Amino acid sequence: MDERLEQQIDFIREIDKAKSIWRQTYISDGTRRENDAEHSWHMAVMAFLLSEHANSDIDVLKTIKMILIHDIVEIDAGDTYAYDEKAHETKKERECAAADRLFGILPKDQGELLLSLWDEFEANETPEARFAHSLDNLQPILLNDASDGLAWREHGVHSSQIYKRNEITELGSKTLWNYVDGLIKKNMDTGNIIRG
Amino acid sequence: MDERLEQQIDFIREIDKAKSIWRQTYISDGTRRENDAEHSWHMAVMAFLLSEHANSDIDVLKTIKMILIHDIVEIDAGDTYAYDEKAHETKKERECAAADRLFGILPKDQGELLLSLWDEFEANETPEARFAHSLDNLQPILLNDASDGLAWREHGVHSSQIYKRNEITELGSKTLWNYVDGLIKKNMDTGNIIRG
Repeated sequence: MDERLEQQIDFIREIDKAKSIWRQTYISDGTRRENDAEHSWHMAVMAFLLSEHANSDIDVLKTIKMILIHDIVEIDAGDTYAYDEKAHETKKERECAAADRLFGILPKDQGELLLSLWDEFEANETPEARFAHSLDNLQPILLNDASDGLAWREHGVHSSQIYKRNEITELGSKTLWNYVDGLIKKNMDTGNIIRG
Repeated sequence: MDERLEQQIDFIREIDKAKSIWRQTYISDGTRRENDAEHSWHMAVMAFLLSEHANSDIDVLKTIKMILIHDIVEIDAGDTYAYDEKAHETKKERECAAADRLFGILPKDQGELLLSLWDEFEANETPEARFAHSLDNLQPILLNDASDGLAWREHGVHSSQIYKRNEITELGSKTLWNYVDGLIKKNMDTGNIIRG
């Protein structure tokens, strides 16, 4: 078979493992945690339905591609929980090695494209990367809100931690940030998020 | 809050249920079945990596949107297994009612857009719909092959059933059809698919 197609299929087989990378967030009904594949699918649908709320005009296709592959590095590097400060110290190094191995499975041009999309997401400087980060923050907050704050309560998460993580949410979309802020306040009121 | 954003978020909350619609196919390591959200994510990544193999030039963004939402109707209608002939008799009716309810949650323009993308996928007449169907057939065959034919063996699937379902695979991509055909033959040789 064509070597290029073989490399593409090898990568497609390999990323099936993203379905076994479990996040801290529960699906809405609270019965189990969600995995990276589900999270990325949910965000991708959000990207095309909510793109009108981005602060700047965005290239929707580029944003969706970025979202679809943004967590693939976790196949090797594992999911780093948003509020685990110790794990964050080694996150960058683990994820860069993962990106080299995983995107290296692809034909060179496509491997470079995915690496550049992932780098762009991580740098968070373009309108597309910023909007993708707004969604990356909004999506688990919607699930936490729907599951009565299950993951927040398990980890005893404080509002200051959530506000710190969400400093970048408004860079992508002021509208979505306002919505997120409303959900945070509502869940502080119900006790799902610890004040302070 | 803005009524339009509220409708969009309501839909985004509702489609979380796609993560609990279980398909017959197992993930590659054979430990559990996969769900609609995971399947759609996997197909969406495939769409942008494999679009060069489509028989005609395709609009990749449109194809990815179509893929991301193609199974959402199963939230109400349930997954209809490819080789369950009885369930297929009522599939269309169940899925049309589901599409009306689910896409009806969205603002009117977006609900109409998603309904039209879903109708286009189902009609399978455009290059985008045909390529999406090629991927919808290739993806579970990759997983079945990786899991040593687990779902095929459980259901005692015959090659004639797989070939019938795959008559449309080559309409979207002759290259991917050739690849699928090779996998079918390999799994007939190993006994994972029953000949005839």
